[in-house]
Amino acid sequence: MPPLPLYLQIADQYQRIIHAGGLKRGDRFPSIRHIMQTQQVSMSTAVQACHVLEDWGLLRAKPRAGYFVENTDAHQPVASGLRPAANDTTAKPQQDLSQRYDGLHQFISEWMAKAEQYPVSIDFMTAVAAPRSYPTAQLNRAAASVLRQHPDILTTFARRYGHPKLRTVLARRSAERGMTLQAGDLTITHGCIEALNLALRAVCSKGDVVAVESPTFYGVLQALEAQGLQPLEIPTSAEHGLSLDALEMALDSQQPPVRAVICMPTLHNPLGCSMSDANKEALVALCRRYQVPLIEDDIYAQTSAEHVHSKPAKAWDSDGSVIYCSSLNKILAPGLRLGWMAAGRWQARVEMLKYSQSRYLDELGQLTAATFMDSQAYDRYLARFQARLQQLRQRAVQAIAQHFGNQVQMLDPTGGMMLWLRLPDHVPALQLSQLALEQGVLTSPGPMFSSKPRMAHFLRMSFGAVSEEQIEQGIAILAECMARLAAAPTSH
Amino acid sequence: MPPLPLYLQIADQYQRIIHAGGLKRGDRFPSIRHIMQTQQVSMSTAVQACHVLEDWGLLRAKPRAGYFVENTDAHQPVASGLRPAANDTTAKPQQDLSQRYDGLHQFISEWMAKAEQYPVSIDFMTAVAAPRSYPTAQLNRAAASVLRQHPDILTTFARRYGHPKLRTVLARRSAERGMTLQAGDLTITHGCIEALNLALRAVCSKGDVVAVESPTFYGVLQALEAQGLQPLEIPTSAEHGLSLDALEMALDSQQPPVRAVICMPTLHNPLGCSMSDANKEALVALCRRYQVPLIEDDIYAQTSAEHVHSKPAKAWDSDGSVIYCSSLNKILAPGLRLGWMAAGRWQARVEMLKYSQSRYLDELGQLTAATFMDSQAYDRYLARFQARLQQLRQRAVQAIAQHFGNQVQMLDPTGGMMLWLRLPDHVPALQLSQLALEQGVLTSPGPMFSSKPRMAHFLRMSFGAVSEEQIEQGIAILAECMARLAAAPTSH
Ligand SMILES: Cc1ncc(COP(=O)(O)O)c(C=O)c1O
Ligand SMILES: Cc1ncc(COP(=O)(O)O)c(C=O)c1O
Repeated sequence: MPPLPLYLQIADQYQRIIHAGGLKRGDRFPSIRHIMQTQQVSMSTAVQACHVLEDWGLLRAKPRAGYFVENTDAHQPVASGLRPAANDTTAKPQQDLSQRYDGLHQFISEWMAKAEQYPVSIDFMTAVAAPRSYPTAQLNRAAASVLRQHPDILTTFARRYGHPKLRTVLARRSAERGMTLQAGDLTITHGCIEALNLALRAVCSKGDVVAVESPTFYGVLQALEAQGLQPLEIPTSAEHGLSLDALEMALDSQQPPVRAVICMPTLHNPLGCSMSDANKEALVALCRRYQVPLIEDDIYAQTSAEHVHSKPAKAWDSDGSVIYCSSLNKILAPGLRLGWMAAGRWQARVEMLKYSQSRYLDELGQLTAATFMDSQAYDRYLARFQARLQQLRQRAVQAIAQHFGNQVQMLDPTGGMMLWLRLPDHVPALQLSQLALEQGVLTSPGPMFSSKPRMAHFLRMSFGAVSEEQIEQGIAILAECMARLAAAPTSH
Repeated sequence: MPPLPLYLQIADQYQRIIHAGGLKRGDRFPSIRHIMQTQQVSMSTAVQACHVLEDWGLLRAKPRAGYFVENTDAHQPVASGLRPAANDTTAKPQQDLSQRYDGLHQFISEWMAKAEQYPVSIDFMTAVAAPRSYPTAQLNRAAASVLRQHPDILTTFARRYGHPKLRTVLARRSAERGMTLQAGDLTITHGCIEALNLALRAVCSKGDVVAVESPTFYGVLQALEAQGLQPLEIPTSAEHGLSLDALEMALDSQQPPVRAVICMPTLHNPLGCSMSDANKEALVALCRRYQVPLIEDDIYAQTSAEHVHSKPAKAWDSDGSVIYCSSLNKILAPGLRLGWMAAGRWQARVEMLKYSQSRYLDELGQLTAATFMDSQAYDRYLARFQARLQQLRQRAVQAIAQHFGNQVQMLDPTGGMMLWLRLPDHVPALQLSQLALEQGVLTSPGPMFSSKPRMAHFLRMSFGAVSEEQIEQGIAILAECMARLAAAPTSH
């Protein structure tokens, strides 16, 4: 069936947000300008979309004040109350869920809040591996030995910028991937997410436009919104990654200009694809030519034997214009929350922002990780870890083929811990995710990763934190839900 | 001797910044508007101050472009090079120190950078106690036991908002100080500094005015600057704390309006004083009346037997309008970097900002602290800790009396780990600190805590991290330096 016209796609996307409670009766509706920018459409398309929503009775125009949300009868508010109620002395107004996630990428927030409301038995959303896939016992031994060797570590003020030993090991290990970094070039952070936030704070200020892949990791969209930055989605192929042509057009002509580019060239989240070396190099050159900092988010390479020694874009950075962000939370120890970055020419600014925002990291975790990563046991562990993920990936791919047949499309990724599924055109990911969630199966619907209407029919499925049996069961449940949706198409 | 006229005080302050390298030849000098706002002076005073600086040959006016720094011959640049030089592939331009602390409260940054250039043997700057004053062995045992009981803790994704056990213990312990909080009201953060930053992000946006005490903790000034917020210094008495009259005037008439108030009502840093209960209550009522959030920074109460059960302002908060920020870094374990906050009606927003900025904290540290704080051993430890700090405080007070006689004035604080010294009028704190630093004694000069010219003759001295002998020696060295300064007054 032919695709809907653009204005209808946009109207459809907003009606879904309204029905999901993302916009409430009386709320001011996004301005035409905002719709034009976030959806990258012309004014006439944005205006048409609003007219359709008005026709549907969902919006009302107020003279000189714009559109307001009118009728959300179909909206089923999600029950509040997972959190302990406020006690009398701090009696805050009863928080509804949208307030809980005040102002931060409404759609993502709503979905995450919803996920908290249901008992989840199969978690296809959290993008980490199961604890037993990590070197739990070895890390515990390392931690115990650090405590013995550094008896004052818990009660001594932490060192600046991160512990030298961890910085040294990370610098040395990054040489294995073609980066020439010294310990002093690195800053240890609270996960990759703090690194990304610091990078954005260092190079952007409120209102700036940041080019991102479309789709992109939802945490990037949240960080942008929380900092008052505007994402500009650049077309990204599920096979080859970011379109350099499209990026160049944006760098060349976008007004206001693009202030930074965030990219995941290796094992992209959610697509699972990687850019070729030639494209990584061209990406670095392109950003340098336009003097726009490239923020590289690179945390999955070591999940795959095929990518463990692949070069990040940073390897082609000859003048410090790439801000490299990474972490150990996916590949070594989700419980340590250790991230790191090499901010190139912005290092001074990043370090001071880090100091002013959260000071330095506690050292026990840093030394524990450093001790283990300094040994060959780390390499042996990585090989096991990669094999385990590959096993789970194959199982997931098989189960999808078996239960969905050719109804669902995907590219089989060569690493990472997620699959990006294209659903049939008549199956909206949000409804499928919702139905599955009610049965205890948690997934990530496409609209979390992009504001583009076409993402409404994609679904991200992480398979790292579950067992083979859960993969089987969970995918069977998903297929069943999809059949139900196909059988009884809903009102919209 | 009578005080200098205001415009001369301001000119004097800026010439010192210029000579210290805080502003370089060719730099744009702050605008008249900026001087008016940061110094709280009239336009004519700001203009006069610039004229004086022009007369002194330090500024040059460019038509329609404002003032620029002209002559900084007297400026002695601090040697760079403590940090490893950039290697070839990331050859960033040689960073000078001001770049290292790019854009963040120039004066504070310069002083901190300077401190890194000298070997420090006596540290009167770091405001923590020595490791052996903390319950090192007990915490290590707690950590080892947590690792045994929760073998997957390092490799499991951390829980939202903080570990329930730590939140429960903190809520229970805060009842001892008159706060009625539930575990669910608390958010665990990376130190009090992250809590303060989150509080500011939750209630302010770029350009907003925030009322702070004068003087205030320099970390607050850095956080404000890093977020693009403007401090408005409210007169604060060294004996009674924040002036409520002055705050009320500011709330009533300041344009642009005050968007938040940050206050340390108990054991103020750097003053060491505490507000009375009546004033704490009045402060909360005042902020509520003007509907301005009060951000309370409260991390020193447990350093003193006299204050350990004192009420924070939050105890009088009946509608969630106080954002309470605290941490365990001063009172239990500087190496754990654990902070926490009770953000009242902004909790939802703070939690989402926290999630988007740095996710959740690793749980090993949280459970270690919770395990120990849940026991009576914690109370016994606190009593020992308080006695130890009191010992050091008495020793410092005595040594100051002995070596400085009545040349230096101070109020003997009843807790905390710092003294706020008023130097003679002819002794600028910055020069004294500089001279002492050259001898290995690190202190915090008054201008770190305020932009007001009168702070130029104050010095903060922390005594928590040093021994009795170091207190003796360090104060003797300081006294000697002061005598040298008095004997040979310098050019300015
Ligand atoms: C692409 C990407 N970047 C960053 C992050 C955040 O990493 P961390 O957990 O180290 O903060 C994630 C986690 O899901 C991710 O998938
Ligand atoms: C008054 C005050 N607030 C906050 C902080 C920062 O606390 P933390 O180390 O817990 O981040 C300090 C530390 O010096 C302080 O003195």
